[in-house]
Amino acid sequence: MTDTPHHWIVTLVCDDQPGIVHAVTGAIVEAEGNITELQQFSSHESGRFFLRLQTETLADHDRVAAALAPVVEHYGMDCRIDRVGRPLRTLVLVSKAAHCLNDLLFRQRAGQLPAEIPLVIGNHPELGELASFYGVPFESRPVTTPEEKAAFEARILDVVEQHDIELVVLARYMQILSPELCARLAGRIINIHHSFLPGFKGANPYKQAHARGVKLIGATAHFVTSDLDEGPIIEQNVVRVDHSRSPSELVAIGQDEESRTLSQAVTWFAEDRVLLDGRRTIIFK
Amino acid sequence: MTDTPHHWIVTLVCDDQPGIVHAVTGAIVEAEGNITELQQFSSHESGRFFLRLQTETLADHDRVAAALAPVVEHYGMDCRIDRVGRPLRTLVLVSKAAHCLNDLLFRQRAGQLPAEIPLVIGNHPELGELASFYGVPFESRPVTTPEEKAAFEARILDVVEQHDIELVVLARYMQILSPELCARLAGRIINIHHSFLPGFKGANPYKQAHARGVKLIGATAHFVTSDLDEGPIIEQNVVRVDHSRSPSELVAIGQDEESRTLSQAVTWFAEDRVLLDGRRTIIFK
Amino acid sequence: MTDTPHHWIVTLVCDDQPGIVHAVTGAIVEAEGNITELQQFSSHESGRFFLRLQTETLADHDRVAAALAPVVEHYGMDCRIDRVGRPLRTLVLVSKAAHCLNDLLFRQRAGQLPAEIPLVIGNHPELGELASFYGVPFESRPVTTPEEKAAFEARILDVVEQHDIELVVLARYMQILSPELCARLAGRIINIHHSFLPGFKGANPYKQAHARGVKLIGATAHFVTSDLDEGPIIEQNVVRVDHSRSPSELVAIGQDEESRTLSQAVTWFAEDRVLLDGRRTIIFK
Amino acid sequence: MTDTPHHWIVTLVCDDQPGIVHAVTGAIVEAEGNITELQQFSSHESGRFFLRLQTETLADHDRVAAALAPVVEHYGMDCRIDRVGRPLRTLVLVSKAAHCLNDLLFRQRAGQLPAEIPLVIGNHPELGELASFYGVPFESRPVTTPEEKAAFEARILDVVEQHDIELVVLARYMQILSPELCARLAGRIINIHHSFLPGFKGANPYKQAHARGVKLIGATAHFVTSDLDEGPIIEQNVVRVDHSRSPSELVAIGQDEESRTLSQAVTWFAEDRVLLDGRRTIIFK
Repeated sequence: MTDTPHHWIVTLVCDDQPGIVHAVTGAIVEAEGNITELQQFSSHESGRFFLRLQTETLADHDRVAAALAPVVEHYGMDCRIDRVGRPLRTLVLVSKAAHCLNDLLFRQRAGQLPAEIPLVIGNHPELGELASFYGVPFESRPVTTPEEKAAFEARILDVVEQHDIELVVLARYMQILSPELCARLAGRIINIHHSFLPGFKGANPYKQAHARGVKLIGATAHFVTSDLDEGPIIEQNVVRVDHSRSPSELVAIGQDEESRTLSQAVTWFAEDRVLLDGRRTIIFK
Repeated sequence: MTDTPHHWIVTLVCDDQPGIVHAVTGAIVEAEGNITELQQFSSHESGRFFLRLQTETLADHDRVAAALAPVVEHYGMDCRIDRVGRPLRTLVLVSKAAHCLNDLLFRQRAGQLPAEIPLVIGNHPELGELASFYGVPFESRPVTTPEEKAAFEARILDVVEQHDIELVVLARYMQILSPELCARLAGRIINIHHSFLPGFKGANPYKQAHARGVKLIGATAHFVTSDLDEGPIIEQNVVRVDHSRSPSELVAIGQDEESRTLSQAVTWFAEDRVLLDGRRTIIFK
Repeated sequence: MTDTPHHWIVTLVCDDQPGIVHAVTGAIVEAEGNITELQQFSSHESGRFFLRLQTETLADHDRVAAALAPVVEHYGMDCRIDRVGRPLRTLVLVSKAAHCLNDLLFRQRAGQLPAEIPLVIGNHPELGELASFYGVPFESRPVTTPEEKAAFEARILDVVEQHDIELVVLARYMQILSPELCARLAGRIINIHHSFLPGFKGANPYKQAHARGVKLIGATAHFVTSDLDEGPIIEQNVVRVDHSRSPSELVAIGQDEESRTLSQAVTWFAEDRVLLDGRRTIIFK
Repeated sequence: MTDTPHHWIVTLVCDDQPGIVHAVTGAIVEAEGNITELQQFSSHESGRFFLRLQTETLADHDRVAAALAPVVEHYGMDCRIDRVGRPLRTLVLVSKAAHCLNDLLFRQRAGQLPAEIPLVIGNHPELGELASFYGVPFESRPVTTPEEKAAFEARILDVVEQHDIELVVLARYMQILSPELCARLAGRIINIHHSFLPGFKGANPYKQAHARGVKLIGATAHFVTSDLDEGPIIEQNVVRVDHSRSPSELVAIGQDEESRTLSQAVTWFAEDRVLLDGRRTIIFK
């Protein structure tokens, strides 16, 4: 315990039952915390209860954890205690398209994205200069043969271990990850898909959207699972288009939505606002 | 206490201080309630704390109130306990434009607007047929002289008293209410203004919007105060327009936004989701 | 030719080639018309050229047609000349859900939807009262056996012939039309699908949307073809939702988008603003 | 005349009268052009006619101009002929906020903004590094005394002359320009105002928006005139906020809308899509 107040995020997940909020807030009172934000949700589908709160207190991490311990024990909770604003250790994978990486790095530098990015890895060298402008190390590793792909994925796991990476962001990384890697990093990889899922899964979504003549195009940030473009959705945005737009114009128009949708998803994840309920997400905005 | 569960809404407002959520949820535990929704907000500007929760319990109104009483007393809370889904006793005032009234009545009949409308009063007779289709009594009273205006407002107060009216909705009622009436019904009159306030206050907002060449037009639902078009804002929506639209086309385009913005505001109010913090509103969606 | 000016809509479709606009506007000059609106589009995919213009002139329909005839002949154009604001002869099919019919009829009466609706046919009787309030004849015909379905479709074709129907609107009509009927009325049936196509085709789209955890739900107005939910898209809208919404709440939230999307599509069609380019639509707003 | 086709933009403004489109397209036929885009608008308010077309032709600038000359003469037109995709010579003024400059430079490098930026001038040095990353010269000149302000504005006029600047962009430049400079560069300065004008003119719009409790915040790109924040509006966007957002959070949220609104306005201007009709703009998207 110190004299400067801390600001903690607490997230809790357990089976739903009466009395949970009272028990949790009692532990916060015990830790002399003032609750500044509190959200909860009971899932009818899964019967699970989800809670996120922020609390200001002089108590340090261990004291907050100790106060919560009996509650966590009693309800069989998954509990996470994190400091508000702590930068998330994030690895970014890219190919050639710059817009998502540029948006992430700009926001990170501007203090709007609570992330710490020790490395960007590309399967092409093009974005090295951009990473370098923002002072972020960059590695380029080709992924054209199965051997190279295996080496690429091994390198990802090395980096995850070495830097204790909490989130891998696919910022328009155009390769499919192996099921093994998806499983190893389940719930810790976010991808931006350049369509309004579940429409236009797979390759060339803007070309598909043009052929189908849709009037809105979109972007979807989602967790990566081994089932391509089927992972839990975190955020989606759309923008209006008309018949006069060519597929390549749709690509340009869609980039803004891709960038802001991905940055929004990463920000929420870094702020512990994204919880998983089966194949759906709970987002405590 | 009965055998069928009740579903209660509790809203509480008091000065902000630690421990409130724990105390309140303790009272809910005492009333054997399961919390299904809980939202809170601490206002930095006013130092006030706002909380809304929904709870399912076998306890009746009096037992919930009794459980909360010591907490309400201790914190000096404004407390309101209401039944989920109880129809709000609502008086609607109109002039000639039908779209907002039509939207309110359609949603009310469809079970999407928890309101009970004992009367619609118009300063013109045109909308009587519409009210009648929905089985709602209608009165037409001209407001062209000061005497008629005074009589109109006296009639409003009569109806409010007689039917124990909780909300007066100005559904494109085109007369200005007297400061006395505004004061008497403070926090209980909602108006729809056909612009994106604070732009284009006063008369003919679409004409003003056209002259100014704005690229989005909007609608604002707000509480009525004696300060014209300056009351606390509840909801706003906008829609894109371009240079080719005449003022009369803007009127037609804006009607959808007016209708849905007003219906949204009334629905939130009826669900006790709208709390006042000075000249701002807290909306617990 | 009379002394009061007419306001004509001219739509033209032909293979793209230079000089078309000059030739067409020359014919308009010959008919002493002033062009008040003109839009064109050349489709790279089909090589077709699309033009829509509005012109004010003292010339009547025959004189405008005569002036255009050599141009239409020379370029092998599909040509349509229509009077601005002429009500489209429209047949509406419904089941039990009222919101789309209510929206169409309210706008039609308010003068915002240029349609003339000689009949509404339902496969259930529930919406008869609503049609009757708006003074529109209503027929209820069950569709539970193959025989009844055949009779229902035969009745549609009768009505189309008898009233010279130009558009059939499926305003949440919950039966699938036979391929024969779709073929007979190709380009003249508009449906509202309660999802953002191509996502969630088929039955219960809101339930599918909930299960998939999408963050925006939508509605799509499209031409009906024998390929279910695959016809050319005319208009789409979406609205934001979050994890807390149940499937039945999604249904209620989506109704606004369904209503306004369908009414928008019908309005554009009635104003000759919707042209077909293969399985895509050109919309001259 | 050469063998490679040119792609020209022609914009024309004159008093409205019959026959203009025929005459103009006749000149394009004479220059053996194929019209790929054509938009027109007749202003009821001003009685002025506005036309923009794009044409592909083997004819060079002079031949297109010669073909149009008799038409321009006859109708007393303001005529402008420009090459599709020609980069607009643009001077950017900034203060400390980086987001708008970053967005402009990123899009410019990505080939999405047809601009050539010979210089960025700031009244603070902070953004020099960003300009430098994009290879754009940067000058820092303090503006704290009347003399410095006069020198700053003299430097702007020098640069405008020296580089034949076509557009000055105020990318969150936080100083008011003198009436003389506004007059000299009338119709050639675009500003981004961080509110949904005409709401919240002047300083600290987000603070004003917070105090007023609006539910949507916005950004407005407009031409600069000597009447502060009253110049013709080019584009506006809004984003939803709620009661929980502090003024400083509104600042962060609003930045995305500012960036994309300004970049959109500059792009349209560079593509000759923005025409002035009194204090309103015609935007041919």
